[in-house]
Amino acid sequence: MSLEVVALDPTPEQYRYVFGGAPEPLLRVRPGTVVELTTEDCFGGRVTSTGDLPSRVCDFSQLNPVTGPIHVEGAEPGDTVAVHFVEIAPARDWAVSTTFPHFGALTATHSTAMLHDPLEEVVWVYEVDRERGTCLFRPRRGGPEVELPLDPMHGTVGVAPAGGEVFATITPGAHGGNMDTPELRAGATAYFGVNVPGAQLSIGDGHCRQGEGEVCGTAVEAAMRTVVVVDLIKGAGTPWPRLETDDFLMSTGSTRPLEDAYRISQHDLVTWAAELTGWDTLDAYQLVSQAGLAPTGNVVDTNYTMVAKLAKAYLGGAGGSVADGVHDRLRRTGADYLAQR
Amino acid sequence: MSLEVVALDPTPEQYRYVFGGAPEPLLRVRPGTVVELTTEDCFGGRVTSTGDLPSRVCDFSQLNPVTGPIHVEGAEPGDTVAVHFVEIAPARDWAVSTTFPHFGALTATHSTAMLHDPLEEVVWVYEVDRERGTCLFRPRRGGPEVELPLDPMHGTVGVAPAGGEVFATITPGAHGGNMDTPELRAGATAYFGVNVPGAQLSIGDGHCRQGEGEVCGTAVEAAMRTVVVVDLIKGAGTPWPRLETDDFLMSTGSTRPLEDAYRISQHDLVTWAAELTGWDTLDAYQLVSQAGLAPTGNVVDTNYTMVAKLAKAYLGGAGGSVADGVHDRLRRTGADYLAQR
Amino acid sequence: MSLEVVALDPTPEQYRYVFGGAPEPLLRVRPGTVVELTTEDCFGGRVTSTGDLPSRVCDFSQLNPVTGPIHVEGAEPGDTVAVHFVEIAPARDWAVSTTFPHFGALTATHSTAMLHDPLEEVVWVYEVDRERGTCLFRPRRGGPEVELPLDPMHGTVGVAPAGGEVFATITPGAHGGNMDTPELRAGATAYFGVNVPGAQLSIGDGHCRQGEGEVCGTAVEAAMRTVVVVDLIKGAGTPWPRLETDDFLMSTGSTRPLEDAYRISQHDLVTWAAELTGWDTLDAYQLVSQAGLAPTGNVVDTNYTMVAKLAKAYLGGAGGSVADGVHDRLRRTGADYLAQR
Amino acid sequence: MSLEVVALDPTPEQYRYVFGGAPEPLLRVRPGTVVELTTEDCFGGRVTSTGDLPSRVCDFSQLNPVTGPIHVEGAEPGDTVAVHFVEIAPARDWAVSTTFPHFGALTATHSTAMLHDPLEEVVWVYEVDRERGTCLFRPRRGGPEVELPLDPMHGTVGVAPAGGEVFATITPGAHGGNMDTPELRAGATAYFGVNVPGAQLSIGDGHCRQGEGEVCGTAVEAAMRTVVVVDLIKGAGTPWPRLETDDFLMSTGSTRPLEDAYRISQHDLVTWAAELTGWDTLDAYQLVSQAGLAPTGNVVDTNYTMVAKLAKAYLGGAGGSVADGVHDRLRRTGADYLAQR
Repeated sequence: MSLEVVALDPTPEQYRYVFGGAPEPLLRVRPGTVVELTTEDCFGGRVTSTGDLPSRVCDFSQLNPVTGPIHVEGAEPGDTVAVHFVEIAPARDWAVSTTFPHFGALTATHSTAMLHDPLEEVVWVYEVDRERGTCLFRPRRGGPEVELPLDPMHGTVGVAPAGGEVFATITPGAHGGNMDTPELRAGATAYFGVNVPGAQLSIGDGHCRQGEGEVCGTAVEAAMRTVVVVDLIKGAGTPWPRLETDDFLMSTGSTRPLEDAYRISQHDLVTWAAELTGWDTLDAYQLVSQAGLAPTGNVVDTNYTMVAKLAKAYLGGAGGSVADGVHDRLRRTGADYLAQR
Repeated sequence: MSLEVVALDPTPEQYRYVFGGAPEPLLRVRPGTVVELTTEDCFGGRVTSTGDLPSRVCDFSQLNPVTGPIHVEGAEPGDTVAVHFVEIAPARDWAVSTTFPHFGALTATHSTAMLHDPLEEVVWVYEVDRERGTCLFRPRRGGPEVELPLDPMHGTVGVAPAGGEVFATITPGAHGGNMDTPELRAGATAYFGVNVPGAQLSIGDGHCRQGEGEVCGTAVEAAMRTVVVVDLIKGAGTPWPRLETDDFLMSTGSTRPLEDAYRISQHDLVTWAAELTGWDTLDAYQLVSQAGLAPTGNVVDTNYTMVAKLAKAYLGGAGGSVADGVHDRLRRTGADYLAQR
Repeated sequence: MSLEVVALDPTPEQYRYVFGGAPEPLLRVRPGTVVELTTEDCFGGRVTSTGDLPSRVCDFSQLNPVTGPIHVEGAEPGDTVAVHFVEIAPARDWAVSTTFPHFGALTATHSTAMLHDPLEEVVWVYEVDRERGTCLFRPRRGGPEVELPLDPMHGTVGVAPAGGEVFATITPGAHGGNMDTPELRAGATAYFGVNVPGAQLSIGDGHCRQGEGEVCGTAVEAAMRTVVVVDLIKGAGTPWPRLETDDFLMSTGSTRPLEDAYRISQHDLVTWAAELTGWDTLDAYQLVSQAGLAPTGNVVDTNYTMVAKLAKAYLGGAGGSVADGVHDRLRRTGADYLAQR
Repeated sequence: MSLEVVALDPTPEQYRYVFGGAPEPLLRVRPGTVVELTTEDCFGGRVTSTGDLPSRVCDFSQLNPVTGPIHVEGAEPGDTVAVHFVEIAPARDWAVSTTFPHFGALTATHSTAMLHDPLEEVVWVYEVDRERGTCLFRPRRGGPEVELPLDPMHGTVGVAPAGGEVFATITPGAHGGNMDTPELRAGATAYFGVNVPGAQLSIGDGHCRQGEGEVCGTAVEAAMRTVVVVDLIKGAGTPWPRLETDDFLMSTGSTRPLEDAYRISQHDLVTWAAELTGWDTLDAYQLVSQAGLAPTGNVVDTNYTMVAKLAKAYLGGAGGSVADGVHDRLRRTGADYLAQR
């Protein structure tokens, strides 16, 4: 089988900062296409040393750039776009993280408004060793350095929202967006319900790694070289973004307060499990109650994100049949691509 | 070294339903004592078949019984009690789970008050196979049965609250209580700040296993035969319950909304990590942001519980020094006990 | 002084369902212009009897129509638009309210996701007696009828959002939108920070009256004939929508959870009061703590809205100087208009 | 009719700091008794000048003292205690308010845990002019002074909790407690469901006045001379504290997040209105949606409090029949008492 492989390497002017709004697509692909793309970090690459405070060097209207939109041919409202992540590789030998004024979970913010001055703005620069698969944490004020394993992921992936809405790329929601879950790593297939013709897929906000919740507000932020396979599932909707790996199904929910994000994600996983197995809804509720995981996505963005996660092994054999096995098929496409490269 | 081993097997009348209130202790132990204890399930053992609806067979003032309190000799306010779980073994070859009127995360409750009728009350009975280490999920209305691995834990562990307060055993808080986190399994050491002389430790609510969040409101509920080692750390407080395993440090937070439970747990983990390593607080904030995990405890009880979790490997060698190595010491005590039994 | 008075009476095709997105304005006005405008009810006028269930007769993409946008000449980002409500008059002798599937504060919703079926969908038709100033509540299933005073207001008023975002008209936020506060009645001046050239003001969602919180999700919904004076305050921003009446200053906050909406509104009122009086921030915090009111806006929309309200009498004489007395000036313009009509 | 009037003037040692726990009552009264009582301020009277920072002069285990418990003879679980406030009079010619480290709505707290240092601790002393009915706000750092009308109230009123629980007096809940609503002023009758024999009523935390939400965490705190009439309604429960005045019915809800406190209060008001009028629940939901008020109680305590408020005039004549007219009866008793004094 011959693979269709295309490259997407935006110029700085081509980055976008919203989902939706019907711009001219950067790329049009047929379902099944492999896309080799590059993404810039959430600071637009402007924070390069500990002296580059984001509040000084960044233009606030140009935070969290995404690469896209990619128009998926044939995608119509009511369909689902599947995006399989074949590879997510840091593009540079450094990455950065920072505190950011009035942003993060342990600080007053514009929503959790308080009379405190902002926490101090601090930049950390990580050395990225792609061969050894590590990034090096250097505390700014002494104490041990720590080598952390690379675990690259994308914080932001999504499609154009429904209803003509346009959301900043920092906002996660039913369209995807800035979910900031470490589960979105290579090997995962993400599913998004299509709201507009062509779906208008965009990807950005690469992280060398991220803790669950992204508590300080930023991860180990890095430009990425990423390879995805984009596919289309006709006639099947997806109410909230879902993820699939070889071993797990995952539903996401993004809203506030955090318990409502939890509710959305668990509700979706329960109804999804019931649909796949034929269980009654209350039986699926019971099984998920005993076998489900609930790792935190983010507790810092304009909406918070929770993930509901269930091992396919606990679906009584129904785990292999998700969307007619699209994950397995895309995984093979990815393997073929890597073998040929 | 000679082990001090005592047994605690309460009669039905001895179970308690609150933390605090200064009752006569069921047991007094010296620090370092191994306690073999039994706990009843959260229904007081009254739900034994699918026909036993909890709203009919249970006395609402006698839900979630705990075994205790255990008076730890020498424990004073400002100290910390350490409880190492050597073994948590289901006492019977069955366990139960149920929906419960107006209780759970995907239903109207007394706090999230709505005009809906309650969801249907349903009981699931699990076959527990202790040899194979499994419990069998049988859907009530068809579809595949699923064998789930046993992963026994206690939902409820804690001490008397501060300030003379008395909390129902269903409530988690700074005193511990009904945190309902699957992380409280054999191999873990739990730390609780002492609020009253003797600490007044109680344990209950055994689960054969539980999903993160306990979404339907109940786990695979079981009576347990549990072995703990109880120890005392003089002169060191613990603001919120903490857990330690061979590989991880964990902080908990229990309140509402869920983001505040997340904030408490992350705040405690950040300050704990800073203290152990000598990092500045913002450096610890950064490290936890990239390396921390945030599994959900419960999103159904009167307070919600989040866990903040960090691999000791990421503490630059400081992970071994927690509370002068009490976890390792208690682990050895537990191993000695198991070897001698 | 000659008044500039213009009329804006949209055709059904001209209604819009989002804020933002840079459409061609329906109207361009100079600051100081009186605008006589009509608005349709939140159902687009399609619910006219108890048999017209909204889920059947409404097109979900055409809920909550707004009249506009109105381009305010000279308005630039960093300015503030002032909209004084001279008159809000029900256009018909009937109005409607309904429950709506999965919408409202005492029902499971798409965000507070649960396994309940929706509450029953019911329509109430109110007789509106404009002469007597009443609307008549007729219970659907017996019990006393109640005559309620008319207290007309607009649920939805706002400008184009910042950052190129586009929000459904059902969403309240820093741009205004669907705040659903009964305080937005005739006699009030609303202030909105300008985010795009011309501000792009839109108005809709008239209510004959509304309880605080709009607990069932809809008010006494009515088409309106409304008269506003639109003005511009150059060089002065407004972080969140504010209201002014003869006697009160009000700040709003719209987000989730509700305590964060409260925080935003109180934070804005505290800083606003400090600025007007010269008090230190903590002194303003103290005064607002003792003299402020906090009526609920809505607890049903995609964001919840709280209002922070302070009598001008408690500002030590500084209450008259808000934005150089624009409220008093617009009030006189409104009075002149009514006298001449 | 002869009035039974008793006085209750506790010594400093007699103040209590919790609800519940079955202490010996300070007083036993028959239903219908007038009680003249004194309460100390929330600081135990220890903050008397701007130099008395509460964190220095107060003992944290002795904050928010209450006067009581009062044993109401004949009160049994399932009954309701009615407490009519005849008079609430400041006992001194001064009162105080303060910020307090990590307490308040616009500051990091122990629950909304953050890495900020506490806001500055500041004390304001108010001159209380009982003749003119005012208290004087003096900003600490310049700007206009403001004379505020006295509007005395009690922040804390309640009974022993159910289930053997004991709550700090700072906690509001289904038992009442620290609801901190300005609606609890003279002229109001408060209803509490009885959980233990004698009900065990306690009262404290007088405020010369308080803004809605009590945003900085403290009101104009004052010792009070208060007169109440205590009565008993046999065989009628009250799920959450309710208030009645000549013109309004009010339900309260106290929990977190704030929307759940709103839900509880509105749910209770809807079901109460349905019960009084014979309306179907959805009809009552509709009426409350259009005619209900929702003033904020507190957004600073361990639980947040919302009030749901409905004019009796909108109950179609059913407003007079609440609990067989107990409010009117107690109001007359209060008037008789004042006439005779």
